[in-house]
Amino acid sequence: MTELGQNARRASRVIARATTAVKNAALLATVDAIEAASDRLVAANELDLQAGRDSGLDDAMLDRLALTPARLQTMIEGLRQVAALPDPVGVIRDMKFLPSGIQVGKMRVPLGVIGIIYESRPNVTVEAASLCLKSGNACILRGGSESIHSNRAIAECLRTGLAAVGLPDEVVQVVETTDRAAVGALITMPDYVDVIVPRGGKGLIERISKDARVPVIKHLDGICHVYVDDRADLDKAEAIAINAKTHRYGVCNAMETLLVHQAVAAEFLPRVAAIYAAKGVELRGCPLSCELLPQAVAATEEDWSTEYLAPILSVKVVADMDAAIEHINTYSSQHTDAMVSEDFSRARRFLAEVDSSSVMINASTRFADGFEYGLGAEIGISTDKIHARGPVGLDGLTSEKYVVFGDGHIRQ
Amino acid sequence: MTELGQNARRASRVIARATTAVKNAALLATVDAIEAASDRLVAANELDLQAGRDSGLDDAMLDRLALTPARLQTMIEGLRQVAALPDPVGVIRDMKFLPSGIQVGKMRVPLGVIGIIYESRPNVTVEAASLCLKSGNACILRGGSESIHSNRAIAECLRTGLAAVGLPDEVVQVVETTDRAAVGALITMPDYVDVIVPRGGKGLIERISKDARVPVIKHLDGICHVYVDDRADLDKAEAIAINAKTHRYGVCNAMETLLVHQAVAAEFLPRVAAIYAAKGVELRGCPLSCELLPQAVAATEEDWSTEYLAPILSVKVVADMDAAIEHINTYSSQHTDAMVSEDFSRARRFLAEVDSSSVMINASTRFADGFEYGLGAEIGISTDKIHARGPVGLDGLTSEKYVVFGDGHIRQ
Repeated sequence: MTELGQNARRASRVIARATTAVKNAALLATVDAIEAASDRLVAANELDLQAGRDSGLDDAMLDRLALTPARLQTMIEGLRQVAALPDPVGVIRDMKFLPSGIQVGKMRVPLGVIGIIYESRPNVTVEAASLCLKSGNACILRGGSESIHSNRAIAECLRTGLAAVGLPDEVVQVVETTDRAAVGALITMPDYVDVIVPRGGKGLIERISKDARVPVIKHLDGICHVYVDDRADLDKAEAIAINAKTHRYGVCNAMETLLVHQAVAAEFLPRVAAIYAAKGVELRGCPLSCELLPQAVAATEEDWSTEYLAPILSVKVVADMDAAIEHINTYSSQHTDAMVSEDFSRARRFLAEVDSSSVMINASTRFADGFEYGLGAEIGISTDKIHARGPVGLDGLTSEKYVVFGDGHIRQ
Repeated sequence: MTELGQNARRASRVIARATTAVKNAALLATVDAIEAASDRLVAANELDLQAGRDSGLDDAMLDRLALTPARLQTMIEGLRQVAALPDPVGVIRDMKFLPSGIQVGKMRVPLGVIGIIYESRPNVTVEAASLCLKSGNACILRGGSESIHSNRAIAECLRTGLAAVGLPDEVVQVVETTDRAAVGALITMPDYVDVIVPRGGKGLIERISKDARVPVIKHLDGICHVYVDDRADLDKAEAIAINAKTHRYGVCNAMETLLVHQAVAAEFLPRVAAIYAAKGVELRGCPLSCELLPQAVAATEEDWSTEYLAPILSVKVVADMDAAIEHINTYSSQHTDAMVSEDFSRARRFLAEVDSSSVMINASTRFADGFEYGLGAEIGISTDKIHARGPVGLDGLTSEKYVVFGDGHIRQ
């Protein structure tokens, strides 16, 4: 791993100064390589699938592992999209003259070497590599051992793409051992790795955060709330409450808890409960909600801090917006929380006082996403406050340095 | 320490939503408290000085420890300056409409709880507390055990300032034990502390970075370079080379290595060497520099990576700008590096390719400073790439969250 790290550090200097045209050409050459190698990719993936079936992986795991023709196409589309994104590297902003006569501003620059640790989905290999490359970073990718054959075959396409434009292979390195010690090494080499982005289940991310000696951009839970205020337009509230919960269940920006102002609970709750019932969503309510909703079961304390990722919803009636904010700041995972209200002053306070990476007024939590926010792509959604918060696009994989222009200026 | 952490977390919610006016009033009330308590502060400081003399602290340490009337005045001035700075909290930028119809932007928000660990200078207590308060953060301050009496007395003034405007005491907490285990606890409470800012010697900072379980904004070495290109205006080069080295020796943004293009070395080096000699600066040169400068001693490999913080300068003749960039990217601590050149295209390349937190053209490295950059104040200079790079002002103590406005928008 040390050698991989040293190679990455060396390659990071080359990719950091590669032009936008060269980086885009490498991405498009990778598209060609994937198209040319699609049979080989499918064959390699078949080895992983076979091994997975033999070792008793469940259907969901096998599904995530599979490189179907549709997924190959999505991979290719993704590469083209990243090539089309504006290059963040080198952007200079806010150059201004200071009283001393010097001119100071900031220039966006790559972070250096990024380590990505992920689970079985092999498409992450291409996605992560393309975002790192476009943002001028070298990367070391460590996928799940279940997808090792697929990842090796994908890595070869990536190397072909890099070679086509004369970039060194080591700009993208895939850890080809399934030895778990490799992860331990990768996250403890601050000399060679500038940041780790883990993608996967909470267990993986907690383990990595605990042991890392390098900064980690991480995403833990998505315990998202929608608060329906008594000054809400209840049609909007209904649309948002239904969309935030039922648009997709297994995603981090789905609502897990619905908070409703006591003054509208008797009207609003039965109305949405009927829709939830039709969609098969189980409701777990506070005592007041259970009174209003015979079909609800009593929520336990644990429910308020559970990310169901399933057709289950906690429901709580609150006295007012302050109680809603208090509940959110206590139980939210600081991912995404929304209020539905037409009240301007309350909106202003909700925005200021809810401490989450995305705070929304009159919109569904499902919008918390790099594509929906116009970032073009995302490497993940950060629930940290340091460096990158919320959906992380290309900018999140860069830093800014100061640039100073003078004309022989010295400090007095 | 857990109790301190819990108190800080609770207080962080209050200070996060305090208005600019309330925060400024707290800072100015602290000024009044310090003025009223100046005798008590001096007496408390005398206890520390006496204990320091008894335990054999050297003169430099005792000097840093002393709260002279001039330093009390500087403290007061600092508080007034921070009160006068614009409030970063709540700034919303880049709100834009996306194709879905939602409007997305970013709002600047406090980090939460900041732990500051520093050595003996008691004025850091006020400086750090004021920056954290203005940026809407609660802080836990852990100063050196040598300054414990001074810090306790200062903490009391800070509490008086907070109380005067009805803010809770726990917005600023000073660790009142000198037990070293307190530091270990402070840096391993991710639930209660969002970021650690260590200020002090390299040993302290390395120890903290190694053991921390919380993000650290840190400043390691300042091994800064000035490269004099063959297309430099040698008058500017002379002014900068002399200023960067001799303006102050013991500071992190002083030049430690001078790199000179071979085509101008024979003219430039003897010229500046005469001035260095007059100022008592010892020169340690590469073989070529030693040929040109009889007074220079031979530099060892170690010299290139040494932060002298003293009237000593390494000098190296390089073949061209590429060799200079290569040397800088190998030996620089990525703090501040400057080129002197009139060549536009080289300036463009130097800016892009030197990977340091401040990169300068035709200006002295001594400008790398929060005040000189117009930040108004600085909590330190970060040599990290994550979150904050270079001088860290109020913005560096904040984060940005996404804000989303809709009108009942749901995701399709």
